[in-house]
Amino acid sequence: MKKKLINNPEQVVEEMIEGIVMATPDKLKKLDDYNIVVRKDKKEGKVALVSGGGSGHEPAHAGYVGAGMLDAAVAGDVFTSPTPDAVFEAIKAVDTGNGVLLVVKNYTGDIMNFEMAAEMAEAEGIEVDHVVVNDDVAVEDSLYTTGRRGVAGTIFVHKIAGAKAAAGADLAEVKATAEKVIDNVRTKGMALYPCRVPAADESTFSLAEDEIELGIGIHGEPGTERTELMEADQIVEELLNSVLEDLPYAEGDNVALMINGMGGTPLMELFLANRKANQMLQDKGIKIEKTFVGEYMTSLEMAGVSITLLKLDAELKELLAAATEIQIMK
Amino acid sequence: MKKKLINNPEQVVEEMIEGIVMATPDKLKKLDDYNIVVRKDKKEGKVALVSGGGSGHEPAHAGYVGAGMLDAAVAGDVFTSPTPDAVFEAIKAVDTGNGVLLVVKNYTGDIMNFEMAAEMAEAEGIEVDHVVVNDDVAVEDSLYTTGRRGVAGTIFVHKIAGAKAAAGADLAEVKATAEKVIDNVRTKGMALYPCRVPAADESTFSLAEDEIELGIGIHGEPGTERTELMEADQIVEELLNSVLEDLPYAEGDNVALMINGMGGTPLMELFLANRKANQMLQDKGIKIEKTFVGEYMTSLEMAGVSITLLKLDAELKELLAAATEIQIMK
Repeated sequence: MKKKLINNPEQVVEEMIEGIVMATPDKLKKLDDYNIVVRKDKKEGKVALVSGGGSGHEPAHAGYVGAGMLDAAVAGDVFTSPTPDAVFEAIKAVDTGNGVLLVVKNYTGDIMNFEMAAEMAEAEGIEVDHVVVNDDVAVEDSLYTTGRRGVAGTIFVHKIAGAKAAAGADLAEVKATAEKVIDNVRTKGMALYPCRVPAADESTFSLAEDEIELGIGIHGEPGTERTELMEADQIVEELLNSVLEDLPYAEGDNVALMINGMGGTPLMELFLANRKANQMLQDKGIKIEKTFVGEYMTSLEMAGVSITLLKLDAELKELLAAATEIQIMK
Repeated sequence: MKKKLINNPEQVVEEMIEGIVMATPDKLKKLDDYNIVVRKDKKEGKVALVSGGGSGHEPAHAGYVGAGMLDAAVAGDVFTSPTPDAVFEAIKAVDTGNGVLLVVKNYTGDIMNFEMAAEMAEAEGIEVDHVVVNDDVAVEDSLYTTGRRGVAGTIFVHKIAGAKAAAGADLAEVKATAEKVIDNVRTKGMALYPCRVPAADESTFSLAEDEIELGIGIHGEPGTERTELMEADQIVEELLNSVLEDLPYAEGDNVALMINGMGGTPLMELFLANRKANQMLQDKGIKIEKTFVGEYMTSLEMAGVSITLLKLDAELKELLAAATEIQIMK
């Protein structure tokens, strides 16, 4: 049983959400009785953005609540969708009469519960729409999804749709921009070591000491291939080639690159992966507009990395560069 | 042998430094033939700040090179001091005739090599001074030090001395401010799991599956106590009480708080630790001016946390809040 720095596994999400809010008490608050983080200064006169999902992916999603990104994040139990009731509370808390966009990762439970919450809100006269992020190129269907999984690319949807909403766009426009991000973002990940859910006695999967898994999901769902440990450069080639092959790329294209640690990966290894990814893109004449290296969408203490590419047009480029108070997205 | 996302262990530092520079190519560059990161736009007319040390503590120190913080960071091999030659190169690269301050963590090798580099620079007419950070309250002397170790508190020295230099202070003034930070910053850490140096076959130490180590150093040097795994709140109490007892604190005091992950600790656990630390400080009437939760001074993939408190007066408070382009210190 893997050691963790926690108290009672049953309280882990609530205590974590309290800890997140305490880190920036001037900007964030927790809704009473719910594991929901909202902005303290509710922003009137704009479309509100709500995201969320199971916990264990921190900083997703509470870490992205702030000016220029999300208005609320709903945290379910670890690797478990939040309830429709909780999502409904978040919608009510942030709605200012300009409509609410839900950013949902493509997992069956999340889709069902966010859609149910949207219906509850609509029944009360709140205008709600949603987009589904499905950026993981690894598998077509998976343990918890019909279609591709939503993973680290979701953060680009938060950032860019958040900037669009902050600029005063209406709900249909914010949704269209979010969908443009989804159409242009692709991710693939791998794991060196698994993670353990706090309430469980065992890791979510196991890998031999000379084995890695390519195409793994952010809950340890099976990937495309188990293989022998390779050099970092080979691993990055495998991941980035899968990502590149999934969209048409040409010399001169602009991209944003995210080298995402899965929770237990030291920064040294992420920077090493960034080096190879940069070299590959440079060789293809693809221009990296902005690089993000760090932990953006994790799987508890899983060790591994995912690589995300977002193909940028002029609008996406401008919105990606727009102001936000979320430090790691500046 | 623990799996790592690396290529050749011999090349790991150079490849990592290349990856760091590639992440912000508009702002950083690597010096040819050295694992040294410097600002691309050399800032004329101010005192230059240089830090560094063994690698494996990322983002320290290369991640702190930028406007408002360091002018150069020198990376030694993993857990190994950089050579006097390398430090000398960094000094020469950033000196603008206004003097250079070296921020050195208190390890015997670092002190010796940075002092030797300072002598080499002075022989060439460059004005150089240095400060030694020794914030770790855990042990008086240690495996690699006479006196206390320099750990995560070093980042506050970078930030505040960096802001002082950016404001146009002279070398003596920047040094005095750096020493004020050192006088007022204290840290204590703990480990749940060890790390492994890339070139080694074994972890730097080992802990049983129900055992943790309190007061451990950032290279896995022995701490104050091995004990059974406790709840997070108890661990935070142990660490923060040691830190608080080491300086006189009174109700109404202002502090900056850093909850630092050691490399393999998921954010969930860091936020949980932040919750308890906040509660303790609130109970004592100590006001937290700013909270930093994340990875600031790591030990490769070691799992664990350190807690740093910096007691703030008006000057330190203002300099801590001053502008910097280092995202995680904003």
